[in-house]
Amino acid sequence: MHGDSHMNELGKELRLVWQAGIPLAGAMGIQVVEFAQNRLLIEAPLAPNINMHGSAFAGSLYGVCALAGWGMLWLQLRLRGLEGSILLAEAHISYARPVVDTIRCACEFDPVAHERQLDRLADSGKGVFVLQTQVRAADQAAVHFEGRYAVRV
Amino acid sequence: MHGDSHMNELGKELRLVWQAGIPLAGAMGIQVVEFAQNRLLIEAPLAPNINMHGSAFAGSLYGVCALAGWGMLWLQLRLRGLEGSILLAEAHISYARPVVDTIRCACEFDPVAHERQLDRLADSGKGVFVLQTQVRAADQAAVHFEGRYAVRV
Repeated sequence: MHGDSHMNELGKELRLVWQAGIPLAGAMGIQVVEFAQNRLLIEAPLAPNINMHGSAFAGSLYGVCALAGWGMLWLQLRLRGLEGSILLAEAHISYARPVVDTIRCACEFDPVAHERQLDRLADSGKGVFVLQTQVRAADQAAVHFEGRYAVRV
Repeated sequence: MHGDSHMNELGKELRLVWQAGIPLAGAMGIQVVEFAQNRLLIEAPLAPNINMHGSAFAGSLYGVCALAGWGMLWLQLRLRGLEGSILLAEAHISYARPVVDTIRCACEFDPVAHERQLDRLADSGKGVFVLQTQVRAADQAAVHFEGRYAVRV
């Protein structure tokens, strides 16, 4: 079992990983808000991610969602003492409502739902994880993202 | 009929529209390379779009692809003397190969295939356009993107 404070230490590490490795995450102003109870919350301010309509650029919303899923898998590996490569293979995104405030994106990980791939990862060093992430705006679902990530440890 | 030089003038205008309206397009270093024969070619340097594996960040690849589709519709409207809003409603992207050089993304527009939506746009001011864009790397398909854009003029 891992306490919330340990999880938030990992959240800080995740931010450093992005800061060091993905300059665009810096340009977007990505912040790790919280990682607890297998739920990761990240956000990005509107200003660097705005479009000509005064709402969040579709590409920024995708970037935040894709990073939330990637970050969740990085955290799940770290919780198991693993490191490896996490590659996004394929994704679908739908935009239901414009986001006109800070972009807030949540990703939840249900270890039971992913048990088979976690076992495969432990056995063969490879796993495929389909994760959903969501951006909410004004208390309504604004963006839904689903990504298929290939993991190798 | 429009000559290639007129089309490339529009390509320059498109770059200014992105520069003024989407700060992240600036951070990504998006350039309009060419617009001719209903084919739009845009590119972005690897450095600001790199990830920790030394290849292009999945979010940057998506952003370039999404902008290529958006830009193509903006250009098609301008060729018809129209202006309006172009919103990405939904998209799917698949990553077949890593991109380890300048990101080059092409979008083609076949007016015949989109004739019905172009007529709808002229009649009712609304149209829906499904566009494909593609990134090639080392002369092979690396990224395939399909986006559904809602246009209002």
